[in-house]
Amino acid sequence: MEKKTPTLKEITPRSQDYSQWYQDVVLKTELADYGPVKGCMIIRPYGYALWEAIQADMDRRIKETGAVNAYFPMFIPKSFLEKEKDHVEGFSPECAWVTIGGGTELEEPLAIRPTSEAMICSMYAKWVGSWRDLPVMINQWCNVVRWEKVTRPFLRTTEFLWQEGHTLHATAEEAEEETLRMLEVYRGFCEEMLAMPVVAGPKSEAEKFAGAKRTYAIEAMMGDGRALQAGTSHNLGQRFAEAYGIEYLDKNMQRVRPWSTSWGVTTRLIGGMVMTHGDDSGLILPPRVAPIQIVIVPIPPRKGDWNEAILPRARELQRRLRAAGLRVHLDDRDTQQPGFKYADWEMRGVPLRLEIGPKDVEKNQAVLVRRDNRAKAFVPEGELAARAAELLAALQSDLLSRARRFLADSTTRVSAWDEFKDVMNGKRGFLACGWCRDAACEAAIKEETKATVRVMPRDAGERPGVCIRCGRPSPGEVLFAQAY
Amino acid sequence: MEKKTPTLKEITPRSQDYSQWYQDVVLKTELADYGPVKGCMIIRPYGYALWEAIQADMDRRIKETGAVNAYFPMFIPKSFLEKEKDHVEGFSPECAWVTIGGGTELEEPLAIRPTSEAMICSMYAKWVGSWRDLPVMINQWCNVVRWEKVTRPFLRTTEFLWQEGHTLHATAEEAEEETLRMLEVYRGFCEEMLAMPVVAGPKSEAEKFAGAKRTYAIEAMMGDGRALQAGTSHNLGQRFAEAYGIEYLDKNMQRVRPWSTSWGVTTRLIGGMVMTHGDDSGLILPPRVAPIQIVIVPIPPRKGDWNEAILPRARELQRRLRAAGLRVHLDDRDTQQPGFKYADWEMRGVPLRLEIGPKDVEKNQAVLVRRDNRAKAFVPEGELAARAAELLAALQSDLLSRARRFLADSTTRVSAWDEFKDVMNGKRGFLACGWCRDAACEAAIKEETKATVRVMPRDAGERPGVCIRCGRPSPGEVLFAQAY
Repeated sequence: MEKKTPTLKEITPRSQDYSQWYQDVVLKTELADYGPVKGCMIIRPYGYALWEAIQADMDRRIKETGAVNAYFPMFIPKSFLEKEKDHVEGFSPECAWVTIGGGTELEEPLAIRPTSEAMICSMYAKWVGSWRDLPVMINQWCNVVRWEKVTRPFLRTTEFLWQEGHTLHATAEEAEEETLRMLEVYRGFCEEMLAMPVVAGPKSEAEKFAGAKRTYAIEAMMGDGRALQAGTSHNLGQRFAEAYGIEYLDKNMQRVRPWSTSWGVTTRLIGGMVMTHGDDSGLILPPRVAPIQIVIVPIPPRKGDWNEAILPRARELQRRLRAAGLRVHLDDRDTQQPGFKYADWEMRGVPLRLEIGPKDVEKNQAVLVRRDNRAKAFVPEGELAARAAELLAALQSDLLSRARRFLADSTTRVSAWDEFKDVMNGKRGFLACGWCRDAACEAAIKEETKATVRVMPRDAGERPGVCIRCGRPSPGEVLFAQAY
Repeated sequence: MEKKTPTLKEITPRSQDYSQWYQDVVLKTELADYGPVKGCMIIRPYGYALWEAIQADMDRRIKETGAVNAYFPMFIPKSFLEKEKDHVEGFSPECAWVTIGGGTELEEPLAIRPTSEAMICSMYAKWVGSWRDLPVMINQWCNVVRWEKVTRPFLRTTEFLWQEGHTLHATAEEAEEETLRMLEVYRGFCEEMLAMPVVAGPKSEAEKFAGAKRTYAIEAMMGDGRALQAGTSHNLGQRFAEAYGIEYLDKNMQRVRPWSTSWGVTTRLIGGMVMTHGDDSGLILPPRVAPIQIVIVPIPPRKGDWNEAILPRARELQRRLRAAGLRVHLDDRDTQQPGFKYADWEMRGVPLRLEIGPKDVEKNQAVLVRRDNRAKAFVPEGELAARAAELLAALQSDLLSRARRFLADSTTRVSAWDEFKDVMNGKRGFLACGWCRDAACEAAIKEETKATVRVMPRDAGERPGVCIRCGRPSPGEVLFAQAY
């Protein structure tokens, strides 16, 4: 059947065409597929299982900060979006508009939420009355739409899934604390769960969220030397409270405006994880989020039936490993050879392979093979669950170490404009250098090199210097990069 | 602050105005609120916590049948929706249409999914090639939009949340089995988790899903004598496979069409649960889905500080009950009296209240009060966790028994048309009677009494008789009711 997606690779090598490699991996491992509407992807079961693992852990982390979940309508009346001037200017060009409903033209077009500040702040204005109601900390998991010209599965799609948190606080200090707390939640999640190291810090004025007072982001470094914004946390100041009329009575019975924040991560995290760890054989999934942590590949005897000795033992091992809390799949297809199965599951990034053949059964052992370095271990059956857990933990940790080294190797401190341009024309990566904080200078750098300020790291103030472009004083180093 | 929703009842009695009672309960317990777009509701944190409990358990049940989750785009091109004639006729009038995206008019309008058969079947046509690919069993949790004229929170809203499963099978028998399996999953869930008894069975031709071969439903009975369709499971036959070009090579290398099914439940379940158990004091939540199962209300001493003896003990009890796996909230507001708190948490339907005052502390005991019957129990501290768990189990079970009695009492077997009309003008409920299976007769009955065939129960064939309206032969009894 020519219609069926081939299950064996033909994955373009990364060195040959990184972008094609990414697309091959995502499509051929069945993480996602293209749909009939331009820019909209289907998240297939294997990819969605990753999102479920991300959601479960992130949801727990969000709730531990005190936030609760809710659901707000996806339709936002045009007039609501228009209440905050910068916000509507930023998002209106990317909106999808519903103009017909129930067979008749609507009096007022409805935007499909590109983000929900307008809707949620309108409701907060109704719900909040007294200082006792603060802080308000609500999160929602939902789909959003931004009409994108160039799209790529997971990295930039017209419709995507995300969580968006929206909080209200009594003081400017609390709002800033919340903004930084969530930035740290995102940083911790990316490193601990996805083994994806990130650089965290504030954005420049030009790169901040439409309507925000201050935007913080976490940025990861991809294999082609381009940065990926992996999560954002915005201190919205009092601007949204003002635009949407949120106020409360403080302890002195004075009407005052609260401070607000918003923060989110999206299905883009999956794309970042793919690029951070994958190799020319396909995916490498961090064990903590891998839908399948161990795949068992039984090896049939040269003569005789594998149902007699091999398969029953393989099933028994699956039961034991599952009982130890591991996610295990037994590949008992009798239509494929072991060699095909090895390559197939390597492509799909399963962290550990367990091989069991006639000799292993005789010796009461099995073979464990790591996906990242192909290291083989012959393990007595009695120690399998413990060793598998150890190897998974080691693999998770090694992926993070390797990615950290890559991030460090990809960061170049430059001190001259020609050097900046040379690196940006070559290996790219993060370029650490001074910047005068003038938006015109930033725009010129972007114009010439496609690089933008990704973040201004926390310890930037410790390295004052001069602007890489104009030579004027720089209060602290920033990181430039070309970005996804 | 007049803006703040009052937290103490003023709930209209059910006997006075059932519909107003429902609305009061939903709004005043902060399950939901109205938004700025007609027909769209906000699911507030307390209501969303119920949806999360429903999702978690339903998702587990769905996965146990072998289905996996995925996510498909919400935009459906007009031409895709039009491929199945009955389907588009049924849904097109209720569609919301996106006509503008990214600032320009779209060449083809995009429907926001009212349901996803068109999108998912189109992808199945691409993915399925061989008999080895079957069965395909994919579910998705998402939002859908149907432009409704009359809306009510949870029961009928323009946008709502649901899960929709879509499966493909090699034979007609397997598709029918799957349809009935999911109907049974829904029935079991409603009874075991929501304590909401339902009647299950096939729909009449007039009431079936647009494009389905056969629709099965579960129907619950609400306090005002009207039926609520709480879940549906459709055998789609080969019609969608034909319309969307799905075929596969069978073992004989012949191209054949698979059979498909779809099935779903929605946020409507929350509305059904509210109406099934609530009373004039507000909600009564079944313990298995209640966001808070036990609320601790500390009673301050007449003289002195509650921080000395009462609050520390209350916190200790909360710790112990939580350690026993119960969901416990301590109401330590010092701005409200215990009497206010009792009424407030009763309104919010918390199944158990734990009171602890100075005398209880002296006696090493606490008081447990059931929400449904207000029965009080004085319980030694050492037995609290065990007794609380027992009482919660008893309450869950008693709610189901009470609802079952109500369902039985609300079902009237009628044998004459005048009797049918009398009951339908009075207490309503389910009317069990013969029906000739003629759509014209069904339409006439609806016209005169607003009642429709809800389901044709499984054992209907055991009771042949005559049509309640025209006197012609009836192959088996059906249940008529007015419906939400």
